[in-house]
Amino acid sequence: MRDLLIRDVLALTQAAVCPQAAIAVRDGEIAYIGPEADLPPAYAGLPVYEGRGRIAMPGLVNAHTHAAMTLLRGYADDLALHEWLTQMIFPAEARLTDEDVYFGTMLACAEMIRSGTTCFADMYFFMDATARAVAESGMRASLSVGMGSGAGDVDGGRAKLAGALDFCSRWNGQAGGRITTMLAPHAPYTCSTTFIEDVARAARASGLGIHTHVSETAREVTEIVTEYGKSPVEHFEALGVFDVPTLAAHCVAVSERDIDIMAAHGVRVAHNPGSNMKLASGVAPVVDMLAKGIAVGLGTDGAASNNNLDMIEEMRLATLLQKVSTGDPTAMPAAECLTMATMGGARCLGLEQLIGSLEVGKRADLILVDHSLPHMEPFLASRATSHMVYASSSSDVSSVIIDGSVVMDERRLTTIDETAILAEARRRAAVLVE
Amino acid sequence: MRDLLIRDVLALTQAAVCPQAAIAVRDGEIAYIGPEADLPPAYAGLPVYEGRGRIAMPGLVNAHTHAAMTLLRGYADDLALHEWLTQMIFPAEARLTDEDVYFGTMLACAEMIRSGTTCFADMYFFMDATARAVAESGMRASLSVGMGSGAGDVDGGRAKLAGALDFCSRWNGQAGGRITTMLAPHAPYTCSTTFIEDVARAARASGLGIHTHVSETAREVTEIVTEYGKSPVEHFEALGVFDVPTLAAHCVAVSERDIDIMAAHGVRVAHNPGSNMKLASGVAPVVDMLAKGIAVGLGTDGAASNNNLDMIEEMRLATLLQKVSTGDPTAMPAAECLTMATMGGARCLGLEQLIGSLEVGKRADLILVDHSLPHMEPFLASRATSHMVYASSSSDVSSVIIDGSVVMDERRLTTIDETAILAEARRRAAVLVE
Repeated sequence: MRDLLIRDVLALTQAAVCPQAAIAVRDGEIAYIGPEADLPPAYAGLPVYEGRGRIAMPGLVNAHTHAAMTLLRGYADDLALHEWLTQMIFPAEARLTDEDVYFGTMLACAEMIRSGTTCFADMYFFMDATARAVAESGMRASLSVGMGSGAGDVDGGRAKLAGALDFCSRWNGQAGGRITTMLAPHAPYTCSTTFIEDVARAARASGLGIHTHVSETAREVTEIVTEYGKSPVEHFEALGVFDVPTLAAHCVAVSERDIDIMAAHGVRVAHNPGSNMKLASGVAPVVDMLAKGIAVGLGTDGAASNNNLDMIEEMRLATLLQKVSTGDPTAMPAAECLTMATMGGARCLGLEQLIGSLEVGKRADLILVDHSLPHMEPFLASRATSHMVYASSSSDVSSVIIDGSVVMDERRLTTIDETAILAEARRRAAVLVE
Repeated sequence: MRDLLIRDVLALTQAAVCPQAAIAVRDGEIAYIGPEADLPPAYAGLPVYEGRGRIAMPGLVNAHTHAAMTLLRGYADDLALHEWLTQMIFPAEARLTDEDVYFGTMLACAEMIRSGTTCFADMYFFMDATARAVAESGMRASLSVGMGSGAGDVDGGRAKLAGALDFCSRWNGQAGGRITTMLAPHAPYTCSTTFIEDVARAARASGLGIHTHVSETAREVTEIVTEYGKSPVEHFEALGVFDVPTLAAHCVAVSERDIDIMAAHGVRVAHNPGSNMKLASGVAPVVDMLAKGIAVGLGTDGAASNNNLDMIEEMRLATLLQKVSTGDPTAMPAAECLTMATMGGARCLGLEQLIGSLEVGKRADLILVDHSLPHMEPFLASRATSHMVYASSSSDVSSVIIDGSVVMDERRLTTIDETAILAEARRRAAVLVE
C-alpha cells in the first residue's frame, strides 16, 4: 500500500501545526498535505489510514549510528573512554561476523522503527549485511564502510578504499532508492594523511559524500594538534575532505575558528548528546553552530554508548543539554529541536530534497504519534510541538510509514519477524562476549 | 488482592540481581523474596501473579514534585526563569481551584503509575484535593502545603502555618498509612526569617519533617547572601530548619561548606536534573553530596518545568548529567543511579524502613518491567541494571503494585477512570490559561 490517505490528523512539520489535516500519498510521494476541508477530490478515493487522535510528523532521521552495536548494548558501561574502547569494545568487535552485523542491524531497525526513526546514517563493518537489513526492514539509510588506515598501511588502505568504493557502486540507489552511500574515513586519529587524501580524492571523483568522526574529545584535539600542528577540523580542511559534502559526527571540542571553517565549507554536523554525555566527552557548541548556519542533525551513536537508539530521547537530551550548558533556558526551543531531528538530519545525509519535512513532492517518510496517554495531556494543538519535544515517549509512536509503505501498523512491525530477530540477537550477543 | 505470589521473575534491588526469583506478599507486606526454588511451602498457595519475562524492582520514588502542575504542561517553555514564573506560571496558578488541583493530581497519578512511580513527595496548594487524589489512586505520598510568607505578613504567616498543621493532623497516616505529611516553607526567598523560625519550631514540636526548596539557582544564593550575609543553607541552619529531618529540593548552587552543613545535619536532597536543565538552573554537585554520605533522591519537579513525571527518564538524565559535568564517565554508575531513584527517594521521605527496596518486612511497593522489546535486547541477567538505567522506557513498566494492591495490571489502571480524568483535565487546562 504505497497509496494512502491519512485523515483527521494533526500535522506537525517545521514548526507549523495544522489540526484536522489530511495527507495524501501516491506512489510513496506526498501528493497533498493541508486542511482536510481543502483536500482535492482526486485524492478522496485513496485507501484511508486513520489519523484521528494522532500527530503526523516527518520520520526522525538518526544522523549518526553504528546500528549493529545493539549487540553490545549494556555490555560495558561506566568506564573511561580508553578502557571502554580498548579493553571491551574493540576485542568484541574483532570477533564480529557478517551475520552478527546482519542480526544486530535488524534488531536496530526494529528498535528504530518502533521509536519513530525512518532513516539513519550508518558507518560500520560488514556493510553488505547492514544494507541487506535495511533493504528487508523497509528503512531508508545512508551507509558507509568505516575505514581506518595508519601511515604504515598503504596497501591495506588502498584495499579498504577499493572495497568501500565497490560497496558504494553496488548499493547506491538500491532498495527502491532508499539506500544511498558515503565514504567513511573513521577519524583523524585512525587515518594517515595519505589515506585521508586518497579518500577525499576518490570522493570527489565519484561524487560521494564523506561521513567521519571529528573532534569527539579534547584529547583527540590535543593529539592531532601535537602531531600535525592543526586542529582536526583544520587538518581535514587542509587534506581536501571538506571539498565534498561532509557529515562530521560529534564536533564536541571545536573552536570558533573550527566552526567558521565548517560553516564556510557547508560541513554538516551530527550531534550525539547521549553518547557525548555517557562517555563524558563534553558538550558540542550546537547553539553556536546553528547561529553560523551549519546544518545540524541528531544522532544516537551506537547502542554501546547510549544505550538505545531513541531519537525522541535524543531530542530531549539535546535541548536540555544546550540550555544547562549555556545557562540560557531559551536556547534551542522546541520547534528548533524538532526541526533538527527531522530536516536537520535530512540535510546531514544530503536528502533534504527528498525527506525531512511533510511537503508535497517529498517521499512519504512519516510517523503517527498517539497523544492519548496521560503524559501527553492536557493535549491542545498549541502544545503539540512542546509535548513532542519535552513530554512524549518513543512508545507513543503508533505507526510508521517509509516511502509510502506502512512498516509499523499500530505498534505491529510489518517487515521484521521480531521474535526471531530478538532470539537470534540474544544468542549471538552472549557468544560474542563470552 | 493484597496477598500474592510473583513467580519466575528477575528481581532487581539495591544492585543485587536474582533471576528466577519469587516474591511473596501477605497483607501488603513482602514475606519472601529470593530464589523460587527456596520458596517456603507456606507461601506456595498464595494467588499467583505472573512474573515471567519481567524485571521486578522497587517502585520509583519521586522525591520532589508539584503534581497538579500537569495542567500547565507545555503551557510555557523556552523562557527565562523569571519571565516563566512571573508572567506565565504565577498568574495561571492564581486562578487554580481545589477541583483543578484534584484533577491535575489525578492526571499526575495516572502518569506516575504508568511510568513506575509508586510514591511521591508533593508540595502545593489545596492539598486536601491532592490527598483525596492520592487516597483514591492508591499511591503513596508525603504531602505538604506550600507556604510563602514575607516579612510584613505576620498574621498571614501564622494562619498559613496553622492551616498546614491542621492538614497534617487530618491526613498523616491516612489512606491505610500511605499518606504522610511534612511542613513546607517554600524557599528562603519567599519566607521571612520569623516565619521560617516559626515553622521550624512547629515542626520540632509536632515531630514533622520539612520539605523546602534550597539554592535552586546562583541568583537565589546571591540574593540571600546579600540580604542575610549567609548562603541559603547557612541561613536555614541558623534558623533551626535542619534540626528536624529536612528534604531540600534542588541544591544546585551549593558550596563545599554548604554540603558539609547538610551532611552534618542529615539533610536529604531531592535532585531534579530535568527541571534544572530545562530552566538552565545549573548542575547540582550530586557526586560530591553522595561522597559525603548525603541521602539523595530523584525528583521530576512539576510538569511545567520538565515536562513529564517520568522517573526512568530522570534516572538517565541524572547519571548522564553527572558524567558530562564532572568529565568522568565512571561517575554515578547504573546501580548507584537505580538505588538513588528508589532507596534514595525513600530516605528523602523518611520512609526507608517501609519502602525503597525489596526486602522481607517492607511494604510491597514494586513494579514489573517488560524486557521483551528491541531496546531492551540483548537481554541477559547481567545487563538488567544497565538496561533499566540506560536503555529502558517508562512504557516498559507493565504492572505496578502499591502496598500489595495491583494499581496497574498489564498497562491497565485499576484505580483511575483514565478517560474521565483526561477529558476533565484537558477541559480545565484550557480554561485555566484562557
